[in-house]
Amino acid sequence: MMSVKIEIICVGNELLIGKTLNTNAQWLAKRAISLGVTVRRITVVGDDVEEIASAVREALERKPRFIITTGGLGPTFDDKTLDGIAKALNRSLELNTKALQMVKEKYEAYAKAGRLDSAELTPYRIKMAKLPDGADPLPNPVGTAPGVRLKADGTEIIALPGVPAEMEAIFEGSVADMLRKEAGTLAFFEASIYADGIMESTLAPLIDLTMRDNPYIYIKSHPRGEEKRPCIEIHFSTTAENSKTAKDRLGKAIIQLSELIREKGGKVKTFKSL
Amino acid sequence: MMSVKIEIICVGNELLIGKTLNTNAQWLAKRAISLGVTVRRITVVGDDVEEIASAVREALERKPRFIITTGGLGPTFDDKTLDGIAKALNRSLELNTKALQMVKEKYEAYAKAGRLDSAELTPYRIKMAKLPDGADPLPNPVGTAPGVRLKADGTEIIALPGVPAEMEAIFEGSVADMLRKEAGTLAFFEASIYADGIMESTLAPLIDLTMRDNPYIYIKSHPRGEEKRPCIEIHFSTTAENSKTAKDRLGKAIIQLSELIREKGGKVKTFKSL
Repeated sequence: MMSVKIEIICVGNELLIGKTLNTNAQWLAKRAISLGVTVRRITVVGDDVEEIASAVREALERKPRFIITTGGLGPTFDDKTLDGIAKALNRSLELNTKALQMVKEKYEAYAKAGRLDSAELTPYRIKMAKLPDGADPLPNPVGTAPGVRLKADGTEIIALPGVPAEMEAIFEGSVADMLRKEAGTLAFFEASIYADGIMESTLAPLIDLTMRDNPYIYIKSHPRGEEKRPCIEIHFSTTAENSKTAKDRLGKAIIQLSELIREKGGKVKTFKSL
Repeated sequence: MMSVKIEIICVGNELLIGKTLNTNAQWLAKRAISLGVTVRRITVVGDDVEEIASAVREALERKPRFIITTGGLGPTFDDKTLDGIAKALNRSLELNTKALQMVKEKYEAYAKAGRLDSAELTPYRIKMAKLPDGADPLPNPVGTAPGVRLKADGTEIIALPGVPAEMEAIFEGSVADMLRKEAGTLAFFEASIYADGIMESTLAPLIDLTMRDNPYIYIKSHPRGEEKRPCIEIHFSTTAENSKTAKDRLGKAIIQLSELIREKGGKVKTFKSL
Protein backbone atom coordinates (compact mmCIF):
# COMPACT_ATOMS: atom_id res chain seq x y z
CA MET A 1 0.00 0.00 0.00
CA MET A 2 2.62 2.55 -1.11
CA SER A 3 1.03 5.95 -1.48
CA VAL A 4 1.91 8.38 -4.26
CA LYS A 5 4.08 11.24 -2.98
CA ILE A 6 3.87 14.84 -4.06
CA GLU A 7 5.62 18.06 -3.03
CA ILE A 8 4.30 21.61 -2.94
CA ILE A 9 6.50 24.64 -3.60
CA CYS A 10 4.98 28.05 -2.89
CA VAL A 11 6.69 31.06 -4.43
CA GLY A 12 6.25 34.59 -3.13
CA ASN A 13 8.02 37.18 -0.99
CA GLU A 14 4.64 37.99 0.58
CA LEU A 15 4.74 34.55 2.24
CA LEU A 16 8.26 35.10 3.61
CA ILE A 17 7.41 38.47 5.18
CA GLY A 18 4.23 37.12 6.75
CA LYS A 19 2.06 39.50 4.73
CA THR A 20 0.07 36.59 3.31
CA LEU A 21 -1.13 33.51 5.18
CA ASN A 22 -0.34 30.44 3.07
CA THR A 23 -3.88 29.22 2.52
CA ASN A 24 -2.85 27.87 -0.91
CA ALA A 25 -0.62 25.24 0.69
CA GLN A 26 -3.38 24.14 3.03
CA TRP A 27 -5.97 24.01 0.24
CA LEU A 28 -3.68 21.99 -2.02
CA ALA A 29 -2.64 19.62 0.76
CA LYS A 30 -6.24 18.98 1.74
CA ARG A 31 -7.33 18.39 -1.86
CA ALA A 32 -4.34 16.18 -2.65
CA ILE A 33 -4.91 14.06 0.46
CA SER A 34 -8.61 13.72 -0.34
CA LEU A 35 -7.65 12.40 -3.79
CA GLY A 36 -5.49 9.72 -2.19
CA VAL A 37 -1.95 11.05 -2.60
CA THR A 38 0.47 12.04 0.19
CA VAL A 39 2.15 15.42 0.57
CA ARG A 40 5.74 14.87 1.62
CA ARG A 41 7.03 18.41 1.90
CA ILE A 42 5.93 22.02 1.47
CA THR A 43 8.62 24.58 0.64
CA VAL A 44 8.17 28.35 0.55
CA VAL A 45 10.72 30.49 -1.31
CA GLY A 46 10.84 34.12 -2.43
CA ASP A 47 10.60 35.67 -5.89
CA ASP A 48 14.14 34.78 -6.83
CA VAL A 49 15.17 32.60 -9.78
CA GLU A 50 18.04 30.92 -7.91
CA GLU A 51 15.90 30.16 -4.86
CA ILE A 52 13.10 28.73 -6.98
CA ALA A 53 15.54 26.68 -9.07
CA SER A 54 17.24 25.22 -6.00
CA ALA A 55 13.92 24.34 -4.34
CA VAL A 56 12.80 22.57 -7.54
CA ARG A 57 16.13 20.77 -7.92
CA GLU A 58 16.08 19.56 -4.32
CA ALA A 59 12.49 18.38 -4.64
CA LEU A 60 13.31 16.48 -7.86
CA GLU A 61 16.10 14.63 -6.03
CA ARG A 62 13.50 13.22 -3.66
CA LYS A 63 11.66 11.83 -6.72
CA PRO A 64 8.06 12.75 -5.91
CA ARG A 65 5.46 11.79 -8.51
CA PHE A 66 4.29 15.43 -8.73
CA ILE A 67 5.67 18.82 -7.78
CA ILE A 68 2.98 21.48 -7.62
CA THR A 69 4.12 25.10 -7.49
CA THR A 70 1.96 28.11 -6.68
CA GLY A 71 2.63 31.74 -7.55
CA GLY A 72 4.91 33.62 -9.91
CA LEU A 73 3.17 33.05 -13.26
CA GLY A 74 1.90 36.57 -13.90
CA PRO A 75 3.08 39.40 -16.15
CA THR A 76 5.26 41.38 -13.72
CA PHE A 77 9.04 41.31 -13.33
CA ASP A 78 8.80 39.39 -10.06
CA ASP A 79 6.84 36.48 -11.57
CA LYS A 80 9.82 34.17 -11.88
CA THR A 81 8.57 30.65 -11.30
CA LEU A 82 8.88 29.45 -14.90
CA ASP A 83 12.35 30.97 -15.10
CA GLY A 84 13.28 29.07 -11.94
CA ILE A 85 11.84 25.77 -13.17
CA ALA A 86 13.59 26.16 -16.54
CA LYS A 87 16.86 26.85 -14.75
CA ALA A 88 16.46 23.82 -12.49
CA LEU A 89 15.97 21.61 -15.57
CA ASN A 90 18.57 23.30 -17.77
CA ARG A 91 15.88 24.13 -20.27
CA SER A 92 15.20 27.40 -22.04
CA LEU A 93 11.98 29.40 -21.96
CA GLU A 94 10.27 29.25 -25.36
CA LEU A 95 7.22 31.02 -26.69
CA ASN A 96 4.52 28.34 -26.56
CA THR A 97 1.94 28.83 -29.33
CA LYS A 98 -0.90 27.13 -27.43
CA ALA A 99 -0.23 29.30 -24.37
CA LEU A 100 0.03 32.42 -26.52
CA GLN A 101 -3.35 31.63 -28.05
CA MET A 102 -4.88 31.29 -24.56
CA VAL A 103 -3.42 34.63 -23.43
CA LYS A 104 -4.45 36.33 -26.68
CA GLU A 105 -8.05 35.16 -26.40
CA LYS A 106 -8.28 36.45 -22.82
CA TYR A 107 -7.10 39.95 -23.72
CA GLU A 108 -9.31 40.08 -26.79
CA ALA A 109 -12.29 39.16 -24.63
CA TYR A 110 -11.35 41.85 -22.05
CA ALA A 111 -10.98 44.47 -24.82
CA LYS A 112 -14.32 43.46 -26.35
CA ALA A 113 -15.97 43.81 -22.94
CA GLY A 114 -14.61 47.36 -22.76
CA ARG A 115 -12.26 46.61 -19.86
CA LEU A 116 -9.14 47.37 -21.85
CA ASP A 117 -8.11 49.97 -24.43
CA SER A 118 -6.10 47.48 -26.37
CA ALA A 119 -5.65 43.73 -26.58
CA GLU A 120 -2.13 44.34 -27.89
CA LEU A 121 0.27 41.54 -26.95
CA THR A 122 2.88 43.59 -25.10
CA PRO A 123 6.10 41.87 -23.96
CA TYR A 124 4.60 41.70 -20.44
CA ARG A 125 1.59 39.79 -21.74
CA ILE A 126 3.66 37.57 -24.03
CA LYS A 127 5.83 36.70 -21.01
CA MET A 128 2.98 34.56 -19.63
CA ALA A 129 3.19 32.34 -22.75
CA LYS A 130 6.94 31.70 -22.47
CA LEU A 131 7.15 28.22 -20.99
CA PRO A 132 10.06 25.90 -20.27
CA ASP A 133 10.90 23.85 -23.36
CA GLY A 134 8.62 20.80 -23.54
CA ALA A 135 5.90 22.22 -21.29
CA ASP A 136 2.16 22.37 -21.98
CA PRO A 137 -0.19 25.13 -20.84
CA LEU A 138 -3.25 24.39 -18.67
CA PRO A 139 -6.32 26.57 -19.28
CA ASN A 140 -7.02 29.23 -16.63
CA PRO A 141 -10.82 29.64 -16.43
CA VAL A 142 -10.55 32.61 -14.06
CA GLY A 143 -7.49 34.72 -14.92
CA THR A 144 -4.98 35.34 -17.68
CA ALA A 145 -1.84 33.33 -16.93
CA PRO A 146 -2.16 29.68 -18.01
CA GLY A 147 -1.07 26.94 -15.65
CA VAL A 148 1.90 24.88 -16.82
CA ARG A 149 2.62 21.18 -16.93
CA LEU A 150 5.88 19.48 -17.81
CA LYS A 151 7.67 16.18 -17.29
CA ALA A 152 11.11 15.79 -15.76
CA ASP A 153 12.11 12.11 -15.55
CA GLY A 154 9.52 10.42 -13.37
CA THR A 155 8.16 13.67 -11.93
CA GLU A 156 5.36 15.79 -13.32
CA ILE A 157 5.82 19.47 -12.51
CA ILE A 158 2.61 21.50 -12.35
CA ALA A 159 2.86 25.30 -12.02
CA LEU A 160 -0.26 27.11 -10.80
CA PRO A 161 -0.87 30.85 -10.21
CA GLY A 162 -0.80 32.33 -6.70
CA VAL A 163 -4.24 33.96 -6.82
CA PRO A 164 -6.33 31.39 -4.92
CA ALA A 165 -9.36 31.46 -7.26
CA GLU A 166 -7.12 30.86 -10.30
CA MET A 167 -5.03 28.20 -8.55
CA GLU A 168 -8.13 26.31 -7.45
CA ALA A 169 -9.85 26.55 -10.83
CA ILE A 170 -6.86 25.19 -12.75
CA PHE A 171 -6.37 22.47 -10.14
CA GLU A 172 -9.98 21.30 -10.40
CA GLY A 173 -10.05 21.62 -14.18
CA SER A 174 -6.75 19.99 -15.09
CA VAL A 175 -4.85 18.57 -12.10
CA ALA A 176 -7.31 16.76 -9.80
CA ASP A 177 -7.89 13.96 -12.32
CA MET A 178 -4.16 13.37 -12.78
CA LEU A 179 -3.72 12.88 -9.03
CA ARG A 180 -6.82 10.71 -8.69
CA LYS A 181 -5.58 8.46 -11.47
CA GLU A 182 -2.17 8.03 -9.85
CA ALA A 183 -3.65 7.38 -6.43
CA GLY A 184 -5.69 4.48 -7.75
CA THR A 185 -8.27 3.25 -5.29
CA LEU A 186 -6.48 4.50 -2.18
CA ALA A 187 -8.19 7.22 -0.20
CA PHE A 188 -7.56 9.10 3.03
CA PHE A 189 -9.94 8.90 6.00
CA GLU A 190 -9.84 10.74 9.31
CA ALA A 191 -11.76 11.34 12.53
CA SER A 192 -11.17 13.24 15.76
CA ILE A 193 -12.21 12.77 19.37
CA TYR A 194 -11.73 15.29 22.19
CA ALA A 195 -10.40 14.38 25.63
CA ASP A 196 -10.76 16.38 28.82
CA GLY A 197 -9.25 15.86 32.27
CA ILE A 198 -6.11 14.13 31.07
CA MET A 199 -2.66 15.57 30.40
CA GLU A 200 -0.86 14.99 27.11
CA SER A 201 1.99 13.28 28.94
CA THR A 202 -0.51 10.82 30.51
CA LEU A 203 -2.16 10.30 27.14
CA ALA A 204 1.12 9.59 25.35
CA PRO A 205 1.57 5.93 26.46
CA LEU A 206 -2.11 5.21 25.72
CA ILE A 207 -1.66 6.41 22.14
CA ASP A 208 1.47 4.29 21.81
CA LEU A 209 -0.45 1.22 22.92
CA THR A 210 -3.38 1.90 20.60
CA MET A 211 -1.11 2.47 17.61
CA ARG A 212 0.75 -0.76 18.36
CA ASP A 213 -2.57 -2.64 18.25
CA ASN A 214 -3.80 -0.79 15.13
CA PRO A 215 -0.95 -0.81 12.64
CA TYR A 216 -2.76 1.05 9.82
CA ILE A 217 -3.92 3.91 12.03
CA TYR A 218 -1.94 7.08 12.68
CA ILE A 219 -2.90 8.95 15.85
CA LYS A 220 -1.78 12.44 16.78
CA SER A 221 -2.70 14.54 19.79
CA HIS A 222 -3.19 18.31 19.52
CA PRO A 223 -3.39 20.23 22.81
CA ARG A 224 -6.14 22.79 22.36
CA GLY A 225 -6.03 24.52 25.75
CA GLU A 226 -3.15 25.14 28.12
CA GLU A 227 -1.64 22.04 29.71
CA LYS A 228 -2.98 23.36 33.04
CA ARG A 229 -6.53 23.12 31.70
CA PRO A 230 -6.08 20.41 29.14
CA CYS A 231 -8.46 19.76 26.28
CA ILE A 232 -6.81 17.57 23.69
CA GLU A 233 -7.95 16.83 20.18
CA ILE A 234 -6.95 13.31 19.18
CA HIS A 235 -6.83 12.89 15.43
CA PHE A 236 -7.04 9.42 13.85
CA SER A 237 -6.21 8.85 10.19
CA THR A 238 -5.71 6.00 7.77
CA THR A 239 -5.29 5.36 4.06
CA ALA A 240 -7.49 2.56 2.80
CA GLU A 241 -8.91 0.99 -0.34
CA ASN A 242 -12.51 1.75 0.62
CA SER A 243 -14.53 3.55 3.25
CA LYS A 244 -15.82 0.36 4.91
CA THR A 245 -12.29 -0.79 5.73
CA ALA A 246 -11.35 2.71 6.86
CA LYS A 247 -14.39 3.09 9.12
CA ASP A 248 -13.85 -0.32 10.70
CA ARG A 249 -10.23 0.49 11.42
CA LEU A 250 -10.91 4.00 12.73
CA GLY A 251 -13.80 2.77 14.89
CA LYS A 252 -11.75 0.01 16.49
CA ALA A 253 -8.87 2.36 17.37
CA ILE A 254 -11.21 5.08 18.66
CA ILE A 255 -13.02 2.64 20.96
CA GLN A 256 -9.78 1.24 22.33
CA LEU A 257 -8.19 4.62 23.05
CA SER A 258 -11.42 6.07 24.49
CA GLU A 259 -11.61 3.22 27.00
CA LEU A 260 -7.97 3.68 28.00
CA ILE A 261 -8.57 7.40 28.54
CA ARG A 262 -11.65 6.76 30.70
CA GLU A 263 -9.67 4.28 32.81
CA LYS A 264 -7.28 7.14 33.58
CA GLY A 265 -10.15 9.37 34.65
CA GLY A 266 -10.39 11.37 31.44
CA LYS A 267 -13.58 12.28 29.59
CA VAL A 268 -14.02 11.65 25.87
CA LYS A 269 -16.35 13.36 23.45
CA THR A 270 -16.64 13.07 19.72
CA PHE A 271 -17.72 16.66 19.24
CA LYS A 272 -15.77 19.86 19.68
CA SER A 273 -18.41 21.22 22.07
CA LEU A 274 -16.62 19.49 24.96
CA MET B 1 23.19 46.75 4.03
CA MET B 2 23.29 42.96 4.21
CA SER B 3 20.35 41.69 6.20
CA VAL B 4 20.53 38.77 8.61
CA LYS B 5 18.94 35.62 7.11
CA ILE B 6 16.89 33.07 8.99
CA GLU B 7 14.98 29.94 8.00
CA ILE B 8 11.80 28.47 9.46
CA ILE B 9 11.12 24.72 9.60
CA CYS B 10 7.62 23.67 10.64
CA VAL B 11 7.18 20.07 11.74
CA GLY B 12 3.82 18.31 11.75
CA ASN B 13 1.77 15.84 9.72
CA GLU B 14 -1.28 18.04 10.38
CA LEU B 15 0.30 20.68 8.12
CA LEU B 16 0.95 18.19 5.31
CA ILE B 17 -2.62 16.88 5.27
CA GLY B 18 -4.08 20.40 5.33
CA LYS B 19 -5.75 19.82 8.68
CA THR B 20 -3.98 22.82 10.17
CA LEU B 21 -3.40 26.19 8.52
CA ASN B 22 0.22 27.19 9.08
CA THR B 23 -0.39 30.35 11.08
CA ASN B 24 2.84 29.72 13.04
CA ALA B 25 4.95 30.31 9.93
CA GLN B 26 3.14 33.56 9.19
CA TRP B 27 3.38 34.77 12.78
CA LEU B 28 7.11 33.99 12.97
CA ALA B 29 7.83 35.53 9.56
CA LYS B 30 5.99 38.72 10.47
CA ARG B 31 7.72 39.02 13.85
CA ALA B 32 11.15 38.23 12.42
CA ILE B 33 10.72 40.80 9.65
CA SER B 34 9.55 43.42 12.13
CA LEU B 35 12.73 42.82 14.15
CA GLY B 36 14.83 43.51 11.05
CA VAL B 37 15.88 40.04 9.88
CA THR B 38 14.96 38.36 6.58
CA VAL B 39 13.23 34.99 6.21
CA ARG B 40 14.85 33.13 3.35
CA ARG B 41 12.88 29.91 3.31
CA ILE B 42 10.04 28.13 5.10
CA THR B 43 10.01 24.33 5.00
CA VAL B 44 7.21 22.07 6.23
CA VAL B 45 7.94 18.40 6.95
CA GLY B 46 6.06 15.61 8.69
CA ASP B 47 6.64 13.88 12.03
CA ASP B 48 9.51 11.79 10.73
CA VAL B 49 13.07 11.83 12.10
CA GLU B 50 14.68 11.43 8.66
CA GLU B 51 12.58 14.18 7.09
CA ILE B 52 13.29 16.58 9.95
CA ALA B 53 17.01 15.77 9.89
CA SER B 54 17.27 16.31 6.14
CA ALA B 55 15.38 19.62 6.29
CA VAL B 56 17.72 20.82 9.06
CA ARG B 57 20.83 19.63 7.21
CA GLU B 58 19.77 21.34 3.99
CA ALA B 59 18.98 24.56 5.83
CA LEU B 60 22.39 24.49 7.58
CA GLU B 61 24.10 24.23 4.19
CA ARG B 62 22.57 27.58 3.25
CA LYS B 63 24.22 29.07 6.37
CA PRO B 64 21.37 31.13 7.81
CA ARG B 65 22.10 32.98 11.07
CA PHE B 66 19.11 31.28 12.72
CA ILE B 67 16.94 28.23 12.05
CA ILE B 68 13.66 28.35 13.97
CA THR B 69 11.64 25.14 14.14
CA THR B 70 8.05 24.81 15.33
CA GLY B 71 6.30 21.69 16.55
CA GLY B 72 7.35 18.26 17.76
CA LEU B 73 8.61 19.04 21.30
CA GLY B 74 5.86 17.39 23.35
CA PRO B 75 5.66 14.11 25.25
CA THR B 76 4.08 11.86 22.59
CA PHE B 77 5.80 9.36 20.29
CA ASP B 78 5.32 11.62 17.28
CA ASP B 79 7.16 14.59 18.84
CA LYS B 80 10.42 13.99 16.98
CA THR B 81 11.94 17.39 16.31
CA LEU B 82 14.81 17.10 18.81
CA ASP B 83 15.57 13.61 17.51
CA GLY B 84 15.72 15.02 13.99
CA ILE B 85 17.94 17.95 14.97
CA ALA B 86 20.29 15.65 16.90
CA LYS B 87 20.50 13.34 13.89
CA ALA B 88 21.23 16.23 11.52
CA LEU B 89 24.13 17.31 13.77
CA ASN B 90 25.38 13.81 14.63
CA ARG B 91 24.77 14.53 18.28
CA SER B 92 23.07 12.37 20.88
CA LEU B 93 20.05 13.27 22.98
CA GLU B 94 21.06 13.75 26.60
CA LEU B 95 19.00 14.36 29.71
CA ASN B 96 19.44 18.09 30.37
CA THR B 97 19.29 18.89 34.09
CA LYS B 98 18.07 22.47 33.60
CA ALA B 99 15.31 21.27 31.26
CA LEU B 100 14.36 18.46 33.65
CA GLN B 101 14.04 20.99 36.46
CA MET B 102 11.71 23.12 34.30
CA VAL B 103 9.53 20.12 33.45
CA LYS B 104 9.50 18.90 37.06
CA GLU B 105 8.39 22.27 38.41
CA LYS B 106 5.52 22.41 35.90
CA TYR B 107 4.14 19.00 36.87
CA GLU B 108 4.55 19.72 40.57
CA ALA B 109 2.58 22.93 40.12
CA TYR B 110 -0.14 21.09 38.17
CA ALA B 111 -0.38 18.39 40.86
CA LYS B 112 -0.52 21.03 43.60
CA ALA B 113 -3.36 22.75 41.76
CA GLY B 114 -5.22 19.44 41.76
CA ARG B 115 -5.06 19.02 38.00
CA LEU B 116 -3.01 15.84 38.19
CA ASP B 117 -2.99 12.75 40.39
CA SER B 118 0.76 12.56 40.35
CA ALA B 119 3.70 14.74 39.38
CA GLU B 120 5.71 11.56 38.77
CA LEU B 121 8.36 12.01 36.09
CA THR B 122 7.29 9.26 33.70
CA PRO B 123 9.47 8.45 30.68
CA TYR B 124 7.02 10.46 28.54
CA ARG B 125 7.54 13.54 30.71
CA ILE B 126 11.29 13.05 30.96
CA LYS B 127 11.40 12.86 27.15
CA MET B 128 10.78 16.63 27.00
CA ALA B 129 14.04 17.22 28.90
CA LYS B 130 16.19 15.11 26.56
CA LEU B 131 17.96 17.67 24.40
CA PRO B 132 20.65 17.39 21.74
CA ASP B 133 24.10 17.45 23.34
CA GLY B 134 25.19 21.06 23.93
CA ALA B 135 21.67 22.53 23.85
CA ASP B 136 20.07 24.86 26.39
CA PRO B 137 16.40 24.91 27.34
CA LEU B 138 14.28 28.06 26.97
CA PRO B 139 11.54 28.58 29.58
CA ASN B 140 7.98 27.91 28.42
CA PRO B 141 5.70 30.33 30.33
CA VAL B 142 2.53 28.70 28.97
CA GLY B 143 3.03 24.94 28.60
CA THR B 144 5.27 22.10 29.70
CA ALA B 145 7.83 21.46 26.97
CA PRO B 146 10.77 23.88 27.14
CA GLY B 147 12.01 25.55 23.96
CA VAL B 148 15.52 24.59 22.90
CA ARG B 149 18.52 26.57 21.72
CA LEU B 150 21.77 25.24 20.34
CA LYS B 151 24.69 26.35 18.17
CA ALA B 152 25.88 24.59 15.04
CA ASP B 153 28.82 26.43 13.45
CA GLY B 154 27.57 29.90 12.60
CA THR B 155 23.91 28.98 12.92
CA GLU B 156 21.76 29.17 16.03
CA ILE B 157 19.00 26.55 16.02
CA ILE B 158 15.91 27.45 18.04
CA ALA B 159 13.22 24.80 18.56
CA LEU B 160 9.77 26.03 19.61
CA PRO B 161 6.56 24.08 20.35
CA GLY B 162 3.76 23.90 17.81
CA VAL B 163 0.97 25.15 20.08
CA PRO B 164 0.73 28.80 18.98
CA ALA B 165 0.40 30.30 22.49
CA GLU B 166 3.50 28.41 23.68
CA MET B 167 5.48 29.17 20.52
CA GLU B 168 4.70 32.87 20.76
CA ALA B 169 5.43 33.09 24.49
CA ILE B 170 8.86 31.47 24.19
CA PHE B 171 9.65 33.59 21.12
CA GLU B 172 8.80 36.83 22.91
CA GLY B 173 10.50 35.77 26.14
CA SER B 174 13.75 34.33 24.77
CA VAL B 175 14.12 34.70 21.00
CA ALA B 176 12.98 38.19 19.95
CA ASP B 177 15.95 39.88 21.63
CA MET B 178 18.45 37.56 19.93
CA LEU B 179 17.06 38.48 16.51
CA ARG B 180 16.86 42.20 17.33
CA LYS B 181 20.49 42.19 18.42
CA GLU B 182 21.64 40.48 15.22
CA ALA B 183 19.58 42.77 13.02
CA GLY B 184 21.29 45.83 14.48
CA THR B 185 19.60 49.06 13.47
CA LEU B 186 18.00 47.70 10.31
CA ALA B 187 14.22 47.51 10.24
CA PHE B 188 11.56 46.61 7.71
CA PHE B 189 8.97 49.12 6.48
CA GLU B 190 6.03 48.62 4.15
CA ALA B 191 2.99 50.32 2.67
CA SER B 192 0.28 49.40 0.16
CA ILE B 193 -1.79 51.32 -2.36
CA TYR B 194 -4.76 49.96 -4.31
CA ALA B 195 -5.25 50.47 -8.05
CA ASP B 196 -8.47 50.13 -9.98
CA GLY B 197 -9.15 50.30 -13.72
CA ILE B 198 -5.76 48.99 -14.79
CA MET B 199 -4.70 45.46 -15.69
CA GLU B 200 -1.70 43.81 -14.07
CA SER B 201 -0.04 43.42 -17.47
CA THR B 202 -0.38 47.19 -18.04
CA LEU B 203 0.91 47.89 -14.56
CA ALA B 204 3.95 45.64 -14.95
CA PRO B 205 6.14 48.06 -16.99
CA LEU B 206 5.19 50.93 -14.65
CA ILE B 207 6.43 48.93 -11.65
CA ASP B 208 9.64 48.12 -13.52
CA LEU B 209 10.24 51.79 -14.17
CA THR B 210 9.51 52.81 -10.56
CA MET B 211 11.79 50.11 -9.17
CA ARG B 212 14.58 51.17 -11.51
CA ASP B 213 14.32 54.72 -10.17
CA ASN B 214 14.02 53.58 -6.51
CA PRO B 215 16.75 51.01 -5.96
CA TYR B 216 16.02 50.32 -2.28
CA ILE B 217 12.31 49.74 -2.79
CA TYR B 218 10.74 46.38 -3.59
CA ILE B 219 7.31 46.55 -5.24
CA LYS B 220 4.97 43.65 -5.75
CA SER B 221 1.47 43.62 -7.23
CA HIS B 222 -1.24 41.34 -5.84
CA PRO B 223 -4.40 40.97 -7.97
CA ARG B 224 -7.32 41.05 -5.56
CA GLY B 225 -10.22 40.60 -7.98
CA GLU B 226 -10.40 38.74 -11.26
CA GLU B 227 -8.33 40.16 -14.09
CA LYS B 228 -11.62 40.99 -15.83
CA ARG B 229 -12.55 43.31 -12.94
CA PRO B 230 -9.12 44.25 -11.74
CA CYS B 231 -8.37 45.64 -8.31
CA ILE B 232 -4.69 45.36 -7.56
CA GLU B 233 -2.92 45.80 -4.26
CA ILE B 234 0.55 47.23 -4.80
CA HIS B 235 2.84 46.54 -1.90
CA PHE B 236 5.97 48.63 -1.33
CA SER B 237 8.68 47.55 1.09
CA THR B 238 12.18 48.55 2.13
CA THR B 239 14.73 47.78 4.81
CA ALA B 240 16.26 50.90 6.30
CA GLU B 241 18.29 52.22 9.22
CA ASN B 242 15.46 54.41 10.49
CA SER B 243 11.85 55.24 9.82
CA LYS B 244 12.57 58.69 8.37
CA THR B 245 14.71 57.21 5.57
CA ALA B 246 12.15 54.46 5.01
CA LYS B 247 9.19 56.86 4.85
CA ASP B 248 11.02 59.18 2.44
CA ARG B 249 11.87 56.28 0.16
CA LEU B 250 8.41 54.70 0.29
CA GLY B 251 6.73 58.08 -0.27
CA LYS B 252 8.82 58.90 -3.32
CA ALA B 253 8.15 55.52 -4.95
CA ILE B 254 4.43 55.61 -4.15
CA ILE B 255 4.04 59.10 -5.67
CA GLN B 256 5.92 58.12 -8.82
CA LEU B 257 3.98 54.90 -9.43
CA SER B 258 0.63 56.51 -8.57
CA GLU B 259 1.23 59.18 -11.22
CA LEU B 260 2.19 56.58 -13.82
CA ILE B 261 -0.99 54.61 -13.06
CA ARG B 262 -3.18 57.71 -13.37
CA GLU B 263 -1.57 58.53 -16.74
CA LYS B 264 -2.77 55.12 -17.95
CA GLY B 265 -6.32 55.87 -16.78
CA GLY B 266 -6.16 53.91 -13.52
CA LYS B 267 -7.43 55.06 -10.14
CA VAL B 268 -5.27 54.89 -7.02
CA LYS B 269 -6.38 54.78 -3.42
CA THR B 270 -4.38 54.28 -0.28
CA PHE B 271 -7.17 52.48 1.55
CA LYS B 272 -8.68 49.08 0.94
CA SER B 273 -12.18 50.57 0.70
CA LEU B 274 -11.57 51.21 -3.03
